[in-house]
Amino acid sequence: MTSIDHPPISPETQTSRTSVLHGIRDLKWETREVPAPGPREVRVRVRRIGVCGSDVHYYTHGRIGSFVVEAPLVLGHEVMGVVEALGAGVTGLQVGDRVALEPGYPCRRCVYCKRGEYNLCPHMTFMATPPVNGALGEYVIWPDDFAFKLPDSISDDAGALLEPLAVGIWAARKGSVVPGDSVAVFGAGPIGCTTIQAAKAAGATTIIAVDLEDFRLELARKVGATHTINARNEDVLAVIRELTKGDLPLSHAGVDVSFETAGSLPTTRMTLAAPRPGGRAVLVGLPPDPEVSLDIVSAASREVTLRGVFRYANCYPAAIALVASGAIDLDALVTHRYTFDQTPEAFEFADHEKKASMKVMIDVS
Amino acid sequence: MTSIDHPPISPETQTSRTSVLHGIRDLKWETREVPAPGPREVRVRVRRIGVCGSDVHYYTHGRIGSFVVEAPLVLGHEVMGVVEALGAGVTGLQVGDRVALEPGYPCRRCVYCKRGEYNLCPHMTFMATPPVNGALGEYVIWPDDFAFKLPDSISDDAGALLEPLAVGIWAARKGSVVPGDSVAVFGAGPIGCTTIQAAKAAGATTIIAVDLEDFRLELARKVGATHTINARNEDVLAVIRELTKGDLPLSHAGVDVSFETAGSLPTTRMTLAAPRPGGRAVLVGLPPDPEVSLDIVSAASREVTLRGVFRYANCYPAAIALVASGAIDLDALVTHRYTFDQTPEAFEFADHEKKASMKVMIDVS
Amino acid sequence: MTSIDHPPISPETQTSRTSVLHGIRDLKWETREVPAPGPREVRVRVRRIGVCGSDVHYYTHGRIGSFVVEAPLVLGHEVMGVVEALGAGVTGLQVGDRVALEPGYPCRRCVYCKRGEYNLCPHMTFMATPPVNGALGEYVIWPDDFAFKLPDSISDDAGALLEPLAVGIWAARKGSVVPGDSVAVFGAGPIGCTTIQAAKAAGATTIIAVDLEDFRLELARKVGATHTINARNEDVLAVIRELTKGDLPLSHAGVDVSFETAGSLPTTRMTLAAPRPGGRAVLVGLPPDPEVSLDIVSAASREVTLRGVFRYANCYPAAIALVASGAIDLDALVTHRYTFDQTPEAFEFADHEKKASMKVMIDVS
Amino acid sequence: MTSIDHPPISPETQTSRTSVLHGIRDLKWETREVPAPGPREVRVRVRRIGVCGSDVHYYTHGRIGSFVVEAPLVLGHEVMGVVEALGAGVTGLQVGDRVALEPGYPCRRCVYCKRGEYNLCPHMTFMATPPVNGALGEYVIWPDDFAFKLPDSISDDAGALLEPLAVGIWAARKGSVVPGDSVAVFGAGPIGCTTIQAAKAAGATTIIAVDLEDFRLELARKVGATHTINARNEDVLAVIRELTKGDLPLSHAGVDVSFETAGSLPTTRMTLAAPRPGGRAVLVGLPPDPEVSLDIVSAASREVTLRGVFRYANCYPAAIALVASGAIDLDALVTHRYTFDQTPEAFEFADHEKKASMKVMIDVS
Repeated sequence: MTSIDHPPISPETQTSRTSVLHGIRDLKWETREVPAPGPREVRVRVRRIGVCGSDVHYYTHGRIGSFVVEAPLVLGHEVMGVVEALGAGVTGLQVGDRVALEPGYPCRRCVYCKRGEYNLCPHMTFMATPPVNGALGEYVIWPDDFAFKLPDSISDDAGALLEPLAVGIWAARKGSVVPGDSVAVFGAGPIGCTTIQAAKAAGATTIIAVDLEDFRLELARKVGATHTINARNEDVLAVIRELTKGDLPLSHAGVDVSFETAGSLPTTRMTLAAPRPGGRAVLVGLPPDPEVSLDIVSAASREVTLRGVFRYANCYPAAIALVASGAIDLDALVTHRYTFDQTPEAFEFADHEKKASMKVMIDVS
Repeated sequence: MTSIDHPPISPETQTSRTSVLHGIRDLKWETREVPAPGPREVRVRVRRIGVCGSDVHYYTHGRIGSFVVEAPLVLGHEVMGVVEALGAGVTGLQVGDRVALEPGYPCRRCVYCKRGEYNLCPHMTFMATPPVNGALGEYVIWPDDFAFKLPDSISDDAGALLEPLAVGIWAARKGSVVPGDSVAVFGAGPIGCTTIQAAKAAGATTIIAVDLEDFRLELARKVGATHTINARNEDVLAVIRELTKGDLPLSHAGVDVSFETAGSLPTTRMTLAAPRPGGRAVLVGLPPDPEVSLDIVSAASREVTLRGVFRYANCYPAAIALVASGAIDLDALVTHRYTFDQTPEAFEFADHEKKASMKVMIDVS
Repeated sequence: MTSIDHPPISPETQTSRTSVLHGIRDLKWETREVPAPGPREVRVRVRRIGVCGSDVHYYTHGRIGSFVVEAPLVLGHEVMGVVEALGAGVTGLQVGDRVALEPGYPCRRCVYCKRGEYNLCPHMTFMATPPVNGALGEYVIWPDDFAFKLPDSISDDAGALLEPLAVGIWAARKGSVVPGDSVAVFGAGPIGCTTIQAAKAAGATTIIAVDLEDFRLELARKVGATHTINARNEDVLAVIRELTKGDLPLSHAGVDVSFETAGSLPTTRMTLAAPRPGGRAVLVGLPPDPEVSLDIVSAASREVTLRGVFRYANCYPAAIALVASGAIDLDALVTHRYTFDQTPEAFEFADHEKKASMKVMIDVS
Repeated sequence: MTSIDHPPISPETQTSRTSVLHGIRDLKWETREVPAPGPREVRVRVRRIGVCGSDVHYYTHGRIGSFVVEAPLVLGHEVMGVVEALGAGVTGLQVGDRVALEPGYPCRRCVYCKRGEYNLCPHMTFMATPPVNGALGEYVIWPDDFAFKLPDSISDDAGALLEPLAVGIWAARKGSVVPGDSVAVFGAGPIGCTTIQAAKAAGATTIIAVDLEDFRLELARKVGATHTINARNEDVLAVIRELTKGDLPLSHAGVDVSFETAGSLPTTRMTLAAPRPGGRAVLVGLPPDPEVSLDIVSAASREVTLRGVFRYANCYPAAIALVASGAIDLDALVTHRYTFDQTPEAFEFADHEKKASMKVMIDVS
């Protein structure tokens, strides 16, 4: 698995050809050294990296909100690979195991970690979030308990896409989706689609996908949406009310749960308006400006619960079980593939062709 | 739909040919008068009655626990029919609507009803539970809010079987089944199978069915079980531990949730033993004797939560949504059918052929 | 108890001197007939009516949002009285029982009622909300299951104030307050104070009250606040962060739960900003304009859960238990009292003297 | 603080006079070396050790269930002391800080730890549980995140008793005690009393303590019980039903939550029988034999939820907040005190005088 061009500097370190963001739209190739894994760490030979919208945003803007790329940064946090070396004390994994990496690990000691809410740990180490590097290279070192062994029934691509699926599962949990629920998902990109898949896996029977692009809506339907609305052509809230009205007065029409995954102001507003009284609204995406003008009064007097999503916690085991069982098909989301050498092209494509693509996958093997 | 032999006594009442239990294994045909529906009531022309184990138990024993048949009793509480007349104030239903009847309605005023736990209402009126009659006749009067309109995508048979599905859904709720969970279901009769279906709809990915009859296990697999164990041939708990052990020590193997649906002492004991630490055990069935010798110490020190199931509340809407969406197939459970005239034969068959049958359905239309 | 001027028209009806709102600041005395109680109803001789902010708002503005006073309206929904007559089927109450009336009753049949979320019932009958009359008269008819018998340990005044306490209890439930929690309550009026009391009863150990008036803050401290902040003088959020910071970085300071009870835009914004990551924000009050500019992005990325409060459900039994046990002192909230004849003065006072009053009570006995 | 007789072997280790159990009723004094604290560890000079029933059981029987004392064992896990030395990376504590030690720490990496259920971690290190030593000596090394700084308002004794309070808080959480609840606590020893205190802090308004000893019942009343039942003299379940019956039929009498803390078969049976339909039963204690004959049928058909308690997780912060705020008084539980030199006498007393004592405290300072 090692490259002929880059023999190991020592038996215990490993050179790793790596794609590094040096500035806006400026990816450079570097050869970095990856050390031997420390205690309870593994070294992973990367095979697949999914390109995420946040990667593209750093690539095109150099920042996301308060996270600014001030030093060269390695992107990539949707990661699948093969275990190549084990640090001391690793017992659950073996060399050769195919693994998906959960891309963030917490301090394990603060009150959030102890409570199991490790996604809120103030000391999180999360890939491809300045100043922490991502995995867009040949090798990466990672704690063994955030490297999940993949069964044969999960493909390499799907292994990388467990990450956006984890977001969808977390969103469905935050929305307390239960069997028989109706849901609306605003935005049918990769996160919208994994949210649809997670909601369906949790038993949602009416799943309304909303987007501006028919390409995405078709794929949404393929992975579980029962209804699609192109917001260019239809009065979204009117259609949702029509689909969800039952015997009750129109004031009580609405979905059980709505999800914002598009990151726009109009969809944020619709996400708050779509649920029935007592329903839930989940913000997976966020509007571009912090200050948002919302009809909070109507939502609050309908007792709609509004929850935000920040990454996820404890979702990889469920994600693996759902994909391995066939309940969720992640391969369906991969629309375009690039080799490792084509990494810059992959980013340019992902930036320009959002309308006609879903997930862009980089094959690092 | 009215019988030539029994013309209506008045325009507002209706004679109803009815099968009445007068004693053990003693079903007699009677013609009873069904009155006009009162306010917020509907009169329903019955089409399908599923034969439930409790019906058979009253038929063969004349009692279930403290419920004793002391006067002639009409059996049957898995009911589908067509609305034939509307009482005052009914707005959500129309004559001709196909409906499933939720067979119990509560007082609507006690603290349990107000809290939404109406299955625990002390003033419940529940079909085919002495002294309340069931629906095994041509007509029945019922409150409109416990008569659920069926979409075309739900068959008449499936309409009747929403009742045992409601039990399965309630069991899955009590067990807090979430996506990715592993479950074990002890007993693969009709309730075992609807529990399997409900658990699968809630996202369970490992579903282990346990029974003594291969016929039932095959059907269980057809409706969602991923693994089956014939308890005659295998060490049930050892197999469950093998299927559920991961990286943790064997002390921590076990399913996330176990369900007892067989009503026997050995399965009750296994239900308590099967969950992992922190898991849940749900008693849908109950052992025949009230006093049970259990290893409660082991379950309690593993922090297994043990919950009982008494009927269900608020499950019909979800049941309808799940069957209508195709997520659950109730028709697969019907293995034998009888005409209304064959009702006594249906009961005899259901009593004697448990091993080779699943659900016996009576066609009253 | 009957008026000399208005003898009963029949033994079964009762004249009732009533204060009726005919227009803005236009309360007229009328003599209305109160019928005999119907089945499961009781006739109550009113003793105490608390003046609520919503009553005052109808009095001064003739409307609250979409609820407009278009016909003469009887105000008053914080009601305590004595049972004077029983309708058919009433078994839990007797003539002479002191009762508090829960001022809204639902349809008992819709899906919200069945689920126990009756406050969201679309067919609610709620006192003093157009077009439903309130109780500001001598007599009122009410369903027996929304009339709660009072133990001797609860005073007449406290009986009327169970209503605002129910709001506070509901708010604490929506905020999932648990023992050891820190909370901030924005607004220290009657609802702010009952929210403080309910949070304290649920185990909150740090209770920060925020208001503009020292008079109210002093009373808040008396009923349970451990810290008070006068927003005129202090940087509210800075003080809250200082009080709640522990070992974690400042980004993770904040209360476990915040409550908005003042109904203003600045406090709504602070309510969203005050919780720690993973905390909860509860809107009991609502800002005057439906559209609100909020930093929803920050709240969502901290995974703060935002919930609204619309009245309450199933709170009276807990309210009674808490007051009867001495855990909560409602009498402390009554700062001003008026006789029934002084009703107009009571309203004028409540309108003008918010800064120096807490709860204005009308003695109708 | 160091002993003249045992000068430090090196600047970084510390001799510690320690009481060691060598066999049944055989405590020997030993001088052990306590090393320098490792990374993120602190060395604590012990001040107080509470004597727990489990300590006494090891002392008198040499085992608890499957935990057998096979090598000399240091007892003591209710620990308060002062930080004497800091390992690398400790930032939240300083030398001189008074601390309570949460006596178990988990692996921090398994799925239970990640979910926040660390009490179920299979790799737990828990004091005074073979083969892990307790703290009954002068010094102990412990991870900094399981050493909680005490505010001045918490006494040394109370600091040690946070441990049994954590059990009570965990029990109340497992029982989902909410404001207005009625609870029954079987057994009024130290754990019964802290359960009473935790239930009261969570808002329980009816708290029924059951024991065989008036001495304990009096203390139970002092710390929060509203009713006491001496099971020698009264029909316990009949009294509970009488205290909890409301308007509902007698079948629906019962407490919201019952707690078993006595560890006997009769109280285990009563714990299952005491809750109302839909209530909860929590086993904090466990009957002496694993196999227990229980009326599980009645409990299950009343939908009583039965939960076990195994230690606790995430309870120390709440325990500290509740004691510091004055909501809970732990000092009231200390009935007898011994010096460190009197340790053997303390154990003999605790073994023989259960009827007339509550908590025996050893002063190690």
